[in-house]
Amino acid sequence: MKTEASIQPKQEIVLTGDRTTGKLHLGHYVGSLKSRIQLQQQYETYIMLADVQALTTHFHNPGLLSQSVRQVALDYLSAGIDPERATIFVQSMVPEIAELTCMYSMFVTVSSLRHNPTVKHEAKERGYDDLYYGFLGYPISQAADITFCKASLVPAGEDQIPHIEQTRRIVRRFNELYAPVLVEPQILVGERLEGLDGGSKMSKSLGNAICLDASSEEVRTQIRRAKTDPARVHKTDPGHPDICTIYGYHSIFRPDRCEDIRENCMKGTIGCAACKAMVTAAIEHVLEPIRERRELYKHRTKDIDDILMAGTERARSVARQTMGEVREAMGIDYFK
Amino acid sequence: MKTEASIQPKQEIVLTGDRTTGKLHLGHYVGSLKSRIQLQQQYETYIMLADVQALTTHFHNPGLLSQSVRQVALDYLSAGIDPERATIFVQSMVPEIAELTCMYSMFVTVSSLRHNPTVKHEAKERGYDDLYYGFLGYPISQAADITFCKASLVPAGEDQIPHIEQTRRIVRRFNELYAPVLVEPQILVGERLEGLDGGSKMSKSLGNAICLDASSEEVRTQIRRAKTDPARVHKTDPGHPDICTIYGYHSIFRPDRCEDIRENCMKGTIGCAACKAMVTAAIEHVLEPIRERRELYKHRTKDIDDILMAGTERARSVARQTMGEVREAMGIDYFK
Ligand code: SF4
Ligand code: SF4
Repeated sequence: MKTEASIQPKQEIVLTGDRTTGKLHLGHYVGSLKSRIQLQQQYETYIMLADVQALTTHFHNPGLLSQSVRQVALDYLSAGIDPERATIFVQSMVPEIAELTCMYSMFVTVSSLRHNPTVKHEAKERGYDDLYYGFLGYPISQAADITFCKASLVPAGEDQIPHIEQTRRIVRRFNELYAPVLVEPQILVGERLEGLDGGSKMSKSLGNAICLDASSEEVRTQIRRAKTDPARVHKTDPGHPDICTIYGYHSIFRPDRCEDIRENCMKGTIGCAACKAMVTAAIEHVLEPIRERRELYKHRTKDIDDILMAGTERARSVARQTMGEVREAMGIDYFK
Repeated sequence: MKTEASIQPKQEIVLTGDRTTGKLHLGHYVGSLKSRIQLQQQYETYIMLADVQALTTHFHNPGLLSQSVRQVALDYLSAGIDPERATIFVQSMVPEIAELTCMYSMFVTVSSLRHNPTVKHEAKERGYDDLYYGFLGYPISQAADITFCKASLVPAGEDQIPHIEQTRRIVRRFNELYAPVLVEPQILVGERLEGLDGGSKMSKSLGNAICLDASSEEVRTQIRRAKTDPARVHKTDPGHPDICTIYGYHSIFRPDRCEDIRENCMKGTIGCAACKAMVTAAIEHVLEPIRERRELYKHRTKDIDDILMAGTERARSVARQTMGEVREAMGIDYFK
């Protein structure tokens, strides 16, 4: 696993993406978007609108995806992804990803998939036999996503570590069976942002998220309602920053000020309202330029479509190249 | 299920194929090839060199596939498949089949796959968890094979009935979830040919097969050694045709003569050697024109490659059309 400090000045290829199941929020920003914006400056960067992955849970209503694909793309552009530097593409429009998924399926056992924590969790919830086949195979399709462009670095949340490990195993197996064509990716672990209700990770489906398109008013209200140390009733009660969501936000958005806040909270020399106002300002500092860029892009739907089509075309040309090497390695490039 | 008699004079689309794991034999001829040769006269016919399916068991040595793909193609042409009428194509070169496989994966449960008899059998042999994921999903990939060209008729052996049933279920599910785009195929059940050792189906891996490229000498020897009624020691001993492999061959290759043979065998008025000579002649009658066509094709390797490339191009153009309709039905044709 890599940390930001250990990235070597070598040429990395970066891949990340998001399931297109709704708007992005601050958790996405902190966990991965922020790194992508830095990484795109130096490295070949691919950003995937994971609509096929979204189908694993949304196959009943794929019509939603069309809206989500554009919503997430707009979030990317607003957050600072530069379409001149990064290749934003649509997963379902790169058939080579499906082809690689089918190829890798041949040498990955059912048992290795059952050990994947996400699969395990879901199997516990709904019974193993009632899983959809595509859901069981989700770590394989993720390996295809990552390897089609030979990504070496995947900025993602901590919960993705076992998935990337599975991709690494698939890569090693392929390279050992055929020829060293594929690249073993490393994960670049992003920060984890807690939800407004405290306790669980920020997530849209849990309703505890601050969306990237939230207005100043919404941010203020959401932070005002966020969970703090329940023991503090009066401003002078000593607080426990380690169990306070707001303190967690300070540590992520204003790490420079953390020590001060901690001290004042514990001494009871700062009130929660004032503390929250400071966090609100720090978040606003992140969201303000995002809002400005959103204003520039939000009515340019045709331009966004053009960006996605051009990005998908670029991704496909890399995918075709890799697929050619895969076929050659396997000896199934019959008519070359 | 359809029998040959019940084919309506409507426009059918025919799809069949063979795993490219070695030469074809008389069992393939009787079970499916014979129907294809008839069907290609009237119907749009697709014949698939199933190299991806072959990978489920041959992923360790895919290099073999390159040879097999051409071997099976030569067998097809020799058997009388007319490349002007039928589209012979290579499965791995039609990416839309992989795409459809991934789409269908989203709404097929693991449990429905576990009920498939082939999967069940294999799971019993090697343990369920040690199955490869691609093997478990083999009924889904078969649904993709059949539906990409909207095949309505699949000439295949009886053992394929549960697979076609699974394809029909997948088609109904897709059409019901999205829009009536896919076609429910019917199976056209071919005859089953017993192996030379009696008891099991003719199969190359069991070593009980007469290959389509067998010489006259080989056929004679193989039939001479084939299992008959073990109770017959002398020509005059009464025989039991129903337990005799050779009698089974008579019923398939010379049904017109069956009654006679049965009577003479049971009365002990025909010897096994003479009876076998008659079967040999009947098989030779099938193989002789196949040999002649093989002579014409066997050194035209470049032409065979051209036939496969042209066929694959035709298959792809139909596949692209279907995939377009599938995307539209699912609402994921974003940029149309
Ligand atoms: S002062 Fe700040 S850190 Fe302390 S409990 Fe209140 S909101 Fe949390
Ligand atoms: S006579 Fe023919 S059918 Fe009868 S046992 Fe011999 S080979 Fe079989």
